[in-house]
Amino acid sequence: MSQPIIYLDNNATTCVAPEVFQAMAPFLQQEYANPSSVYPFAGAPAAALEKARGQVASLLGATPGEIVFTSCGSESDNAALRSAIKTQAGRRNLVTTCVEHPAILNTCRDLAEYAGIHVDYLSVDSHGRLDLDEARALITEETAMVSVMFANNETGNIYPIRELARLAHQRGALFHTDAVQAIGKVPIDLSKELTEVDFLSLSGHKFHAPKGVGVLYRRSFAPFAPYLTGGHQEHMLRAGTENVASIVGLGEAARLAQEHIQEENTRVKALRDRLQEGLLATCPDAMVNGDLEHRLPNTLNICFKYIEGESILLRLWDRARVCASSGSACTTGSLEPSHVLRAMGLDYKALHGTVRLSLSRYTTDQDIDTVLEVMPPIIRNLRDLSPFGREG
Amino acid sequence: MSQPIIYLDNNATTCVAPEVFQAMAPFLQQEYANPSSVYPFAGAPAAALEKARGQVASLLGATPGEIVFTSCGSESDNAALRSAIKTQAGRRNLVTTCVEHPAILNTCRDLAEYAGIHVDYLSVDSHGRLDLDEARALITEETAMVSVMFANNETGNIYPIRELARLAHQRGALFHTDAVQAIGKVPIDLSKELTEVDFLSLSGHKFHAPKGVGVLYRRSFAPFAPYLTGGHQEHMLRAGTENVASIVGLGEAARLAQEHIQEENTRVKALRDRLQEGLLATCPDAMVNGDLEHRLPNTLNICFKYIEGESILLRLWDRARVCASSGSACTTGSLEPSHVLRAMGLDYKALHGTVRLSLSRYTTDQDIDTVLEVMPPIIRNLRDLSPFGREG
Repeated sequence: MSQPIIYLDNNATTCVAPEVFQAMAPFLQQEYANPSSVYPFAGAPAAALEKARGQVASLLGATPGEIVFTSCGSESDNAALRSAIKTQAGRRNLVTTCVEHPAILNTCRDLAEYAGIHVDYLSVDSHGRLDLDEARALITEETAMVSVMFANNETGNIYPIRELARLAHQRGALFHTDAVQAIGKVPIDLSKELTEVDFLSLSGHKFHAPKGVGVLYRRSFAPFAPYLTGGHQEHMLRAGTENVASIVGLGEAARLAQEHIQEENTRVKALRDRLQEGLLATCPDAMVNGDLEHRLPNTLNICFKYIEGESILLRLWDRARVCASSGSACTTGSLEPSHVLRAMGLDYKALHGTVRLSLSRYTTDQDIDTVLEVMPPIIRNLRDLSPFGREG
Repeated sequence: MSQPIIYLDNNATTCVAPEVFQAMAPFLQQEYANPSSVYPFAGAPAAALEKARGQVASLLGATPGEIVFTSCGSESDNAALRSAIKTQAGRRNLVTTCVEHPAILNTCRDLAEYAGIHVDYLSVDSHGRLDLDEARALITEETAMVSVMFANNETGNIYPIRELARLAHQRGALFHTDAVQAIGKVPIDLSKELTEVDFLSLSGHKFHAPKGVGVLYRRSFAPFAPYLTGGHQEHMLRAGTENVASIVGLGEAARLAQEHIQEENTRVKALRDRLQEGLLATCPDAMVNGDLEHRLPNTLNICFKYIEGESILLRLWDRARVCASSGSACTTGSLEPSHVLRAMGLDYKALHGTVRLSLSRYTTDQDIDTVLEVMPPIIRNLRDLSPFGREG
């Protein structure tokens, strides 16, 4: 590919940081021992696992014993929800939101179908915000677990996790948060303001570690029944020979995330804000979706009425090799509008014209300049072709 | 480490083949797109996934649509067993063996505890062999699934999968085999002699792919309910962003396994046989455990009476940097004798003195020469120190 790409789809996946690849490489080559083996050749992988556990614990304000490595954020979500149904015997209700990732929504559906669990879904307003009063009403003594994402993958909305965890505990329910989109973008300290979070999910590939590795944080003494059963790995909490190289990469990515968290909230946020203001100023009938007061610093979900998001993406690629998303990467392949935007009650004219631009610490000023240059003519041109025409 | 290691623990894990690492590297660097994304930048990872699927299908005599990538063999085992309980409604029995991997045994225990499933375990004789008459009696119209490993990780015993699958189908039960130890060592053709196998588990790191990736083969139209629920990946059969790099590595490892399958059954087998004959000839009171007629070509499970396997391993390392195992790597960390050898009714004097030496295509003549040279004095010396003394 001659022209470099402009990657603005960091909520779908991220590049592997060069430091992460360097850290992994020995464990995909000479250091291949099984960390459970007893001979000294297994010492390096075993030590590397524990180093990575410490790095993740440090990022979260947790202790190493609270970190369980999994294969992905979806596995962590499955583990948290399915465990609660096993350990909270007698409680047959789950409370979550209608804007969760499919890993939560489809696991809830599966538990409803196969385990007879009743699931309640918190609604959102037109800005994608939750209502704590609704949560207060839905969480009961029947609730085994409350699971609310830390931040939304599509809009970037950040939810009131501290308050929701407190509500869950007041009713004796466990609390889980899918923090896959939040980690590395906003500070998360489980030892201070978030002491009532019992379980938390992370995915490596959303913060510059490779795909295929995740974390389930499980607070010490929180009741837990393993999801992936088998061998004694991960202190008996997750079976399967440890994915040493990727875990090492995730540890290094955690260290880098901690190092760069300020940059996300200053330089990256400033780029996002410049992109947002520039697009609103130059493209008529554009609107930002989400909660502008409580939003990830890297995410811009913007709709251009009367045209198709997919068409915008095609042109962005053709003009400037821009990678972005029209919805959650996890549901692309279908052209069905995003369940998140539908839950917010967006008008269908806006729903279809939505584009998500998500930045990272690798995003440059030049990347943003280019998008601000190519987007207005793309929008104008597509509107000229649109059967919906233009308002007024 | 100055002296090179002699790695004879290939049933615990294997080195990553250099070709595998080379195939993976681009997907841990520049080719980082999410394969579910729609822009052309996601084309390479998406195509690489499908190439790997074809490579695995070719190794197994399967079709690409029958290959589901998972995070490990243990996940594949969980998926097969837990699915059967969901899809075979009304059938509340599982039949397996007492010599399975913990991924099967502990998942069966979990299903017994939390889902009220009744599990029957086939016994083995002193050579670790199953009895088809016992299987015939235990598999009933109540049986949801029969799960029998293709080959045993400790003894290398190969089980009569074709006959067991037929028995399962005669009673309307599904059939699963954990082929983690067999793949690449013996030919497996699911299109010919094994057409009644419905599900099969593989683990990448047992055949020179990295840790953290596996396969669940699921025969077309075999009833299946996903284990890891969430996004639409793997044709809706396994959620979670695909572990692209490791899947690519597994595909390449499958290609190499197919290429080297003859070598495993000629050169590697000859090395194992030479090792076995040499040790039996030079070490008194030694005995091979397992079924010498039906055994993996790379595995030697040998007991030296009156001494401790762990002590043998320590000396093997000290003298010649030999890596081997005294039991299954998945249960080391505890000094409890192997459940497989106990099921075979081994005398405790033999049980504790067992060592497993497992070869691979990277094992050399020189490796075997060295072990044959250092082992006899180690055994003599340990016996001199043993409180059990020596027979006679």
